[in-house]
Amino acid sequence: MSPVPSESAPRFEKVLIANRGEIALRVQRATREMGLRTVMICSEADRDAPYRQAGDEFVCIGPASPRQSYLNQAAVLLAARATGAGAIHPGYGFLSENAAFAEAVERAGLIFIGPPASAIRTMGDKIAAKRAMIEAGVPCVPGPDAALPEDLASIAAIAEGIGYPVIIKAAGGGGGRGMRVVHDPSALGDAVSVTREEARRAFGRPDLYIEKFLAHPRHIEFQVLCDEHDNAVWLGHRDCSMQRRHQKVVEEAPAPAIPADIVAAVGERCANACRKIGYRGAGTFEFLYEDGAFYFIEMNTRLQVEHPVTEMTSGIDIVREQLRVAQGLPLTISQADVRTYGHSFECRINAEDPFTFAASPGTITAAQFPGGPGVRVDTHVTTGYRVSPHYDSLIAKLIVHAPTREEAIRRMRVALADTAIDGIATNLPLHRELFAEPAFCAGQTDIHYLETWLGERKK
Amino acid sequence: MSPVPSESAPRFEKVLIANRGEIALRVQRATREMGLRTVMICSEADRDAPYRQAGDEFVCIGPASPRQSYLNQAAVLLAARATGAGAIHPGYGFLSENAAFAEAVERAGLIFIGPPASAIRTMGDKIAAKRAMIEAGVPCVPGPDAALPEDLASIAAIAEGIGYPVIIKAAGGGGGRGMRVVHDPSALGDAVSVTREEARRAFGRPDLYIEKFLAHPRHIEFQVLCDEHDNAVWLGHRDCSMQRRHQKVVEEAPAPAIPADIVAAVGERCANACRKIGYRGAGTFEFLYEDGAFYFIEMNTRLQVEHPVTEMTSGIDIVREQLRVAQGLPLTISQADVRTYGHSFECRINAEDPFTFAASPGTITAAQFPGGPGVRVDTHVTTGYRVSPHYDSLIAKLIVHAPTREEAIRRMRVALADTAIDGIATNLPLHRELFAEPAFCAGQTDIHYLETWLGERKK
Repeated sequence: MSPVPSESAPRFEKVLIANRGEIALRVQRATREMGLRTVMICSEADRDAPYRQAGDEFVCIGPASPRQSYLNQAAVLLAARATGAGAIHPGYGFLSENAAFAEAVERAGLIFIGPPASAIRTMGDKIAAKRAMIEAGVPCVPGPDAALPEDLASIAAIAEGIGYPVIIKAAGGGGGRGMRVVHDPSALGDAVSVTREEARRAFGRPDLYIEKFLAHPRHIEFQVLCDEHDNAVWLGHRDCSMQRRHQKVVEEAPAPAIPADIVAAVGERCANACRKIGYRGAGTFEFLYEDGAFYFIEMNTRLQVEHPVTEMTSGIDIVREQLRVAQGLPLTISQADVRTYGHSFECRINAEDPFTFAASPGTITAAQFPGGPGVRVDTHVTTGYRVSPHYDSLIAKLIVHAPTREEAIRRMRVALADTAIDGIATNLPLHRELFAEPAFCAGQTDIHYLETWLGERKK
Repeated sequence: MSPVPSESAPRFEKVLIANRGEIALRVQRATREMGLRTVMICSEADRDAPYRQAGDEFVCIGPASPRQSYLNQAAVLLAARATGAGAIHPGYGFLSENAAFAEAVERAGLIFIGPPASAIRTMGDKIAAKRAMIEAGVPCVPGPDAALPEDLASIAAIAEGIGYPVIIKAAGGGGGRGMRVVHDPSALGDAVSVTREEARRAFGRPDLYIEKFLAHPRHIEFQVLCDEHDNAVWLGHRDCSMQRRHQKVVEEAPAPAIPADIVAAVGERCANACRKIGYRGAGTFEFLYEDGAFYFIEMNTRLQVEHPVTEMTSGIDIVREQLRVAQGLPLTISQADVRTYGHSFECRINAEDPFTFAASPGTITAAQFPGGPGVRVDTHVTTGYRVSPHYDSLIAKLIVHAPTREEAIRRMRVALADTAIDGIATNLPLHRELFAEPAFCAGQTDIHYLETWLGERKK
């Protein structure tokens, strides 16, 4: 453990933001508020985006294709060196969970604003992650913390021990790919061989593991923050059950109707696990929650899209804490300082057809966002902005906060009504319909709710 | 005291908002969030303003001239009757502190969302207000709570008793008009006769009063909320010393460097005074503060422009409480529930030259506002909005909140840098310069600071 550096002798004074869109702007604001200089990078497709101008400098690092720009490690490092940046903030997506990149950054003598590469690597391997969590006392889905054996008879015995239904997953998978639910022993053999083949092809390694399959869980996650000085805190939890094809659409904090003592016990274990694995910076423990029990599924070793709902309920600027931790400073808060208040929702506004989900790139001819108390808008788009077909469709995050969940729902309805984006299709109509749905408004959702609702809506 | 009505049987279900601009939109959002219907009114000059469309209905009530529209009591009442509105929210300015209008609204069988007409009337008369405050134990500026006698010898004796310098004020005056500072006895006679003549001409009554003159006070005010059920709370205090010609330019909450026990004692007295005078709704006690002592100057019996800084630090939606109180419901909070946290600033963005203060009406060709954590924007303008020459120049309020005053200053600097309004002149450059001024940033201001700074800047 290194000594606490003084605020007047920072490890870095200039930060390169290796991302684009709303999160590049979000990170850049926090960076400037701390008196640091910023370098934004961009691809040729983003060269004329007005939000690029907000930083101190910007560097175009390659063509529109992410592989040649935002995912191009050498180009990002070159831009950092050329501009004299002392640290790199990866945002989310792109290089944010790439252990090799984190190592390359450190090798280049720069600071990676994120956890140590070893933590990224451990948490990126589902079996290793599960083993680490079991050791740290974090509740996991029943199933062995080891790769499945080759022979089907042994696998069948393990499945029998867990109890059907079970789920077969590729150890290197994620985002909904490389997994198969098995409802009875007769389907086990095919599921194993098909998933193993997919794992080999898609993730470059054939390792599989098996877990109990939960039929109607909710997706609940815990935000953590850690520093180099053995401090680790959890900032409350979020419900992100509203997903379509594993893409979150609406998030909220706190998760409704989970007993506070269960939440606190799991949150405490997440913080302890961080200390155990030598974690640093911001991270998220993702769980399935069913029948009063939490089951760890994975850790995201980076800032998440939905971090604002936790900022709204905790009053803590998560990006600022990330930057402080990277400077070697202690967290500004201890667990005893964390007080959550009220309720927050986030709607992801995407440039896509609200019901077919077809991408809708093009020029925004008019953009109008709401304001007033308890309303936060994180966006990089303004009137005249051209939504590129090269990147994900997120163009804005509409976030509200109010003393109660019911008031937050009412506030979101008004905020959604007062948001207008012309010239392209957006999913605003989907959000408006969801926030009028009695079951959603009553908090009666699970990870299948949105897809079921969309399916029934079509009929 | 009437019984508490149930939330399911409201006194009114539709609110007419008798105002324009950002405050009309602010009030309308709170109204819709509570599930009430809204009627916006407008003058012919505002007929095409896009923010008009946000409510359920809108009525054009007259020509651009305020006298023929927003100040036209008969036209406002007619619009309320025609649309079936059950209550009228006056916003600030226009009819908001007009006791006769409040009475006319009640006579028409509608609810005036504000204090009883009697409280507006008492507080509108400076001598009556001071008498009421002295009775309620609120600290006042030394001087008799009565009109000055006619003969100069008696006046000189009173001035001698208070101690020079003194200030002579018209009882019906306000906003910096009808007042004169007297530094020694030789100047007293002229000051009295000139001010009396001005009072007769400008305010229709010759009554004068006299007070101790404070040389370098700060302007500190206390926000209060009261209901019909004898509940009165104060929500912390604000520093509004940054004024030019009695117009506030920057406001903050809390006021820096005033001992908490002094603040609490005055806040408690303000709440008590509200109970004593039968106050209802939102109100503000304005004080001068010098050398550790508070001196009451006036009460604003309405919502104020700067209410958001208190909302940011207290987490309480003041407009929502106003609407609840008007429904006959109790406040949602007791004094024990009021917890203030962090620091908030508001910059009033005006359509005017930043240093000559010449009005700058015209069309906004591009408007860009910041977002992210701790940033709130209250505005009715968007790209294409036409700023009318008929009304005050306020086009947006930029509000920030952060854990400390220093962090709030840094946040405001970034927010100001990221705000862009093209096509007209605005005072954004003034705000940017102020937030770089060491004395202002250190909280070393008084009510003369801004004018002195502007004067020195010219040299």
